[in-house]
Amino acid sequence: MKKSLGADTILYTTPVLVIATYDKKDVANAMTAAWGGICCSKPPCIAVSLRSATYSHGNIIEHKAFTVNIPSEKHVKEADYFGMASGRNENKIKKSGLTAVKSEIVDAPYIKEFPLVLECQLKEIVEVGLHTQFIGEIKDVKADKNVIKPDGTLDVGKIKPFVFLPDCRGYYGLGKKIAQAFSVGRL
Amino acid sequence: MKKSLGADTILYTTPVLVIATYDKKDVANAMTAAWGGICCSKPPCIAVSLRSATYSHGNIIEHKAFTVNIPSEKHVKEADYFGMASGRNENKIKKSGLTAVKSEIVDAPYIKEFPLVLECQLKEIVEVGLHTQFIGEIKDVKADKNVIKPDGTLDVGKIKPFVFLPDCRGYYGLGKKIAQAFSVGRL
Repeated sequence: MKKSLGADTILYTTPVLVIATYDKKDVANAMTAAWGGICCSKPPCIAVSLRSATYSHGNIIEHKAFTVNIPSEKHVKEADYFGMASGRNENKIKKSGLTAVKSEIVDAPYIKEFPLVLECQLKEIVEVGLHTQFIGEIKDVKADKNVIKPDGTLDVGKIKPFVFLPDCRGYYGLGKKIAQAFSVGRL
Repeated sequence: MKKSLGADTILYTTPVLVIATYDKKDVANAMTAAWGGICCSKPPCIAVSLRSATYSHGNIIEHKAFTVNIPSEKHVKEADYFGMASGRNENKIKKSGLTAVKSEIVDAPYIKEFPLVLECQLKEIVEVGLHTQFIGEIKDVKADKNVIKPDGTLDVGKIKPFVFLPDCRGYYGLGKKIAQAFSVGRL
């Protein structure tokens, strides 16, 4: 028996996406977003939704680029901080002690200490409501060498990504592999 | 030191979204998508991306509605099956043994056995490339009564959602709560 929870954004699960951009003075900024996901395979694209009130919103429009950085569990504190403070008031990356590296591919920085980075060129802007959706074409994906397995796939046990649950506002790590996709469901 | 993996859709993590729709003859269909996420808080909206070749793509355009169903670990086999077969060739929900229930709010069915459902009215269509992005306004969220805690939030230990990792194509369950958002990052 199902019960109504009302019209709400309760999706299980949402990712933890640290969006890095440059401002008008080319100061690197980072903010954390849970509203987003891959939106196309060819060309590879990712959509991230930001409120127009955020500093990053103007930065993306200014530079037409952003990176999506995936933090490890050990940086949950910094990721959460990036989601609360504003680059309008403080240099968040500097204050966090993390390092901004200039992308050689798009006009945006990425976070050196985070194991996985998607470098994106702004492709489209979709005004949805309170949030603006920025669709970025993924120009390259970079990962720390020590999280790449010999077969070229990533070692999730080393990346240690975590997800965000919108209703309880909890960050959860990943557990065990439960099945192989495009395989377990063969009837 | 980071290494380039090329322009690819390697996001950690992506959700497992079972999209349920009616076809032209009002036969319920389900397909699994990992390309999607919340895209707006007000109005609450979710974006899901489907290839135009899918049966569900035409169904959403026909009925201007869909539901997003979140499967539990115990239904990983059915969820994976929904992502491989096509409703054009077989009645997938029937074959899976699961139950389609007609939504009272939008013109789409939902999966009775899955613990969490987002009922969506089509709001916007964005052609991105190989994939079409369907933005749905979430008209209601429904959850099984036995996964709702006394405080109104969901019990993730009972829902047991799982994520999809695009490069290794693995399904992974969730692990422990690692921190509370909007709290742990207070500097």
